[in-house]
Amino acid sequence: MNGADAVIATLADNGVEACFANPGTSEMQFVTALDREPRVRPVLCLFEGVATGAADGYGRMAGKPAVTLLHLGAGYTNGAANLHNARRAYTPIVNVIGDHATYHRKFDAPLTSDIAGLAGPNSIWLKTAETADQAADLAAQAVAASYGPPGGPVSLILPADCAWSEATHKGPTITPPHAPPPAGEVVEAIARAVKDAVKPVLLLGGSSCTERGLAAAARLQAAGTRIITDTFIPRQRRGGARFAPDKMMYFGEMAMADLAGCDLMVLVDTVQPVAFFAYPNMPSVLVPEGCKPVTLARRGEDGAAAMEALAEALGAKAAPAAATQLFPDRPTGDISPYTVGASIARHMPEDSVISDDAVTSGLPVFMQTKGARPHDWLSLTGGAIGQGIPVAVGAAVACPGRKVLSLNGDGAAMYTVQGLWTMAREDLDVTVVIFANHTYRILGVELSRTGAGAPGKAAASLLDLGDPRIDWVKLASGLGLSAVRCDTAEGFDAALAAAMGEPGPSLIEVVLA
Amino acid sequence: MNGADAVIATLADNGVEACFANPGTSEMQFVTALDREPRVRPVLCLFEGVATGAADGYGRMAGKPAVTLLHLGAGYTNGAANLHNARRAYTPIVNVIGDHATYHRKFDAPLTSDIAGLAGPNSIWLKTAETADQAADLAAQAVAASYGPPGGPVSLILPADCAWSEATHKGPTITPPHAPPPAGEVVEAIARAVKDAVKPVLLLGGSSCTERGLAAAARLQAAGTRIITDTFIPRQRRGGARFAPDKMMYFGEMAMADLAGCDLMVLVDTVQPVAFFAYPNMPSVLVPEGCKPVTLARRGEDGAAAMEALAEALGAKAAPAAATQLFPDRPTGDISPYTVGASIARHMPEDSVISDDAVTSGLPVFMQTKGARPHDWLSLTGGAIGQGIPVAVGAAVACPGRKVLSLNGDGAAMYTVQGLWTMAREDLDVTVVIFANHTYRILGVELSRTGAGAPGKAAASLLDLGDPRIDWVKLASGLGLSAVRCDTAEGFDAALAAAMGEPGPSLIEVVLA
Repeated sequence: MNGADAVIATLADNGVEACFANPGTSEMQFVTALDREPRVRPVLCLFEGVATGAADGYGRMAGKPAVTLLHLGAGYTNGAANLHNARRAYTPIVNVIGDHATYHRKFDAPLTSDIAGLAGPNSIWLKTAETADQAADLAAQAVAASYGPPGGPVSLILPADCAWSEATHKGPTITPPHAPPPAGEVVEAIARAVKDAVKPVLLLGGSSCTERGLAAAARLQAAGTRIITDTFIPRQRRGGARFAPDKMMYFGEMAMADLAGCDLMVLVDTVQPVAFFAYPNMPSVLVPEGCKPVTLARRGEDGAAAMEALAEALGAKAAPAAATQLFPDRPTGDISPYTVGASIARHMPEDSVISDDAVTSGLPVFMQTKGARPHDWLSLTGGAIGQGIPVAVGAAVACPGRKVLSLNGDGAAMYTVQGLWTMAREDLDVTVVIFANHTYRILGVELSRTGAGAPGKAAASLLDLGDPRIDWVKLASGLGLSAVRCDTAEGFDAALAAAMGEPGPSLIEVVLA
Repeated sequence: MNGADAVIATLADNGVEACFANPGTSEMQFVTALDREPRVRPVLCLFEGVATGAADGYGRMAGKPAVTLLHLGAGYTNGAANLHNARRAYTPIVNVIGDHATYHRKFDAPLTSDIAGLAGPNSIWLKTAETADQAADLAAQAVAASYGPPGGPVSLILPADCAWSEATHKGPTITPPHAPPPAGEVVEAIARAVKDAVKPVLLLGGSSCTERGLAAAARLQAAGTRIITDTFIPRQRRGGARFAPDKMMYFGEMAMADLAGCDLMVLVDTVQPVAFFAYPNMPSVLVPEGCKPVTLARRGEDGAAAMEALAEALGAKAAPAAATQLFPDRPTGDISPYTVGASIARHMPEDSVISDDAVTSGLPVFMQTKGARPHDWLSLTGGAIGQGIPVAVGAAVACPGRKVLSLNGDGAAMYTVQGLWTMAREDLDVTVVIFANHTYRILGVELSRTGAGAPGKAAASLLDLGDPRIDWVKLASGLGLSAVRCDTAEGFDAALAAAMGEPGPSLIEVVLA
């Protein structure tokens, strides 16, 4: 048993079942060790941003980490943007980053870099193995650390000689920690504050939008406390007549208008809301004047248990039955994100998973699918576009038998377009939707909001994706996916119905302009 | 004049003429400021790794920095791998990394990250502006710092309010520093050592493989000192009967055999050679026992001047005329990297530029083009694959009127495939060659060298790109390039001749398996 064998066996003993990999020379022992560990499924990604985004999608759906296999500092940084998103989603991920042999590092060979420095900012735990035995022990620690709470990406740097040298033992099996509930006196104090408040609002963070968390939130709303969620939720259970709370509005002035008059903001598994970006003469903190923010559950505490305790303390009764499922009529005419959303609501099967990286087109679909069949919605938590395809890859690996929809702006999809190939390679049950508006649409909005003025020729060229137009059908086909282009609402409705009706990967280009 | 105007005007005053950009909200002022600065050409890249690689290619060919425009930490890391390569190539690059407004940073909005931490390892200079006026001054310092010597990527973090606030002045114009020659006594001491040596060898680093450096090196070789270059040279002048030194061999055991018996290694603009990777029971340092390494010119010193001085000190005469140009016959039959190299040697016009990111296929082309028409060869200096397409983009922007060839392994090309679109958008005169062997070929070699054993099913799946096969003609066509597939030597020879005969971008897929 070499160090790589010991590391992989330890990961598998601790529940790791998927490896999203883009290996290089320093990872060759890890690669062949996978031959000897059938519990871990290797999934090749043709770019590291696909591997890390896939691990994020996997972790959100499986509730446990996948391992990524990355090639030194350069390979790690290629995957760093999606690890930034995963950090913001509190997704457990174990990165194994190969490095030069311990004795070779000091010679500064061309691929040498400060891996710990590069990986530190997006790792909630980071260690470097110096021997094969230490590597195995650290692998167990890495899995445990990835759970937090709150969870996040962790990084184990594995020098090549730690992988190829003999190991004497595997690492231990570690029981993952549980998120604790908040203290009873915190709940009691907040119950009193809610009773005293004129217009209380409860803001839910990402890990609390589960079945159980939403049920408790529904009780609280029925008892008179408005419930809203953070704008971007890593995984939200939706549809099927479930309680569907409002979202914090994305733009600060809209959020502040929406919250006008609130005098108490109860934070559950989140922190006080802030604007995604600053704008001249706009507020950064999205808490209205006279509104007091108080924390019921800190991140890493059990938000669902906290809300259940608060509901008890307030004597809240069971929530009334919510509206039943609502299916829109077949949309006709011009195609738009709204008609696409209507078709998705009509056709997506029960327990679908939606990976949303459609910056300006995602919200209409979100609104249209409120009453659709039960599903999970995975948002872009960190703002680094390019996760819609990779997260769908990981969700599909985590959830065989569930249909995955990947919603992407055309600009965002280009970042990690390599993931289409992995969908084809692994025959994943993903339908990729590309909203082709041939522009970075959001930036057209932001240009005026930031006071940057009207775009001239140079500025316009930096926002425009339409010259030449990307042909997504050819692109997808070149990477092994069947694909169609739709420019009417009816056309999309039929194409989506067909895609939902048969398993396997495909792509639909939605021509918006 | 806002801060963004002041920054761009300062960059332009200091000679910056190209901006490779992938902007976001925090960069909107910089984007519209480009409308007001006609001296800087904006080039949109659909992924940051394209932007940074293009800046590398631009800097190598123009001898001065381009500016990249990147969106916070996530955008920066997307471009970090090619900045790693650029750091190893000593290429001047100025990264402008947008950040949240200064007062907004502390609120930890979703896109907030430790930009300085992420960018530090691959920046030879890094500063954060805190006011608009400071931003302009730092822009001038950034350009100056990027020249080194030795040069490299520098990073200026530009908070959004520093861009949108009023600036009172532009930054200064700074004269770039020159690489100094080594001290006379160093040259004299090394001349004595060379005279005393039985088998001296002189190892050339990247910045010395210029016209002038190679001419001096040729004199030294004629006087009895063997000349070899580092394995990977950022920019090497070649062809047209020029002196064509050998390279350090890539694999350590071959390099050591090649250097057997050498008792003196004179380092010019480089350091003692080390193996690209460590392998069990193989040496890390590639200097034979009994061979003494001595430094004639440190990195950042003028290697060409150093060699001229050494030639004088040794009384070396002018080098004899080298062989004349040699054009291979038209290749026929099975296509291979050798036949492709022969066709390139036959057809590439004078002053072509070759961007080489073909890990296992590049060397045969390099060998075949030794006696071709004069050209520049740009190598992968840092080992992070995925620069062949972006570097070609930048070289073409830097050198209008010169034909650019981009040589790529299929695995490498997938990393930054988005660059094909920029070639189409900008109508760049680039011919992209994809060596489609449908595998990470180098890893098949490395698997046995690292002692990782024969691949089983899992390991083989992580090295194989052939299931499904990527259709490069469709892929390129989807991104706006005309493309053809060649599976015979004759077919490629004809396709390349056609591509060399007309300007504009195109792609040729070479089917190797």
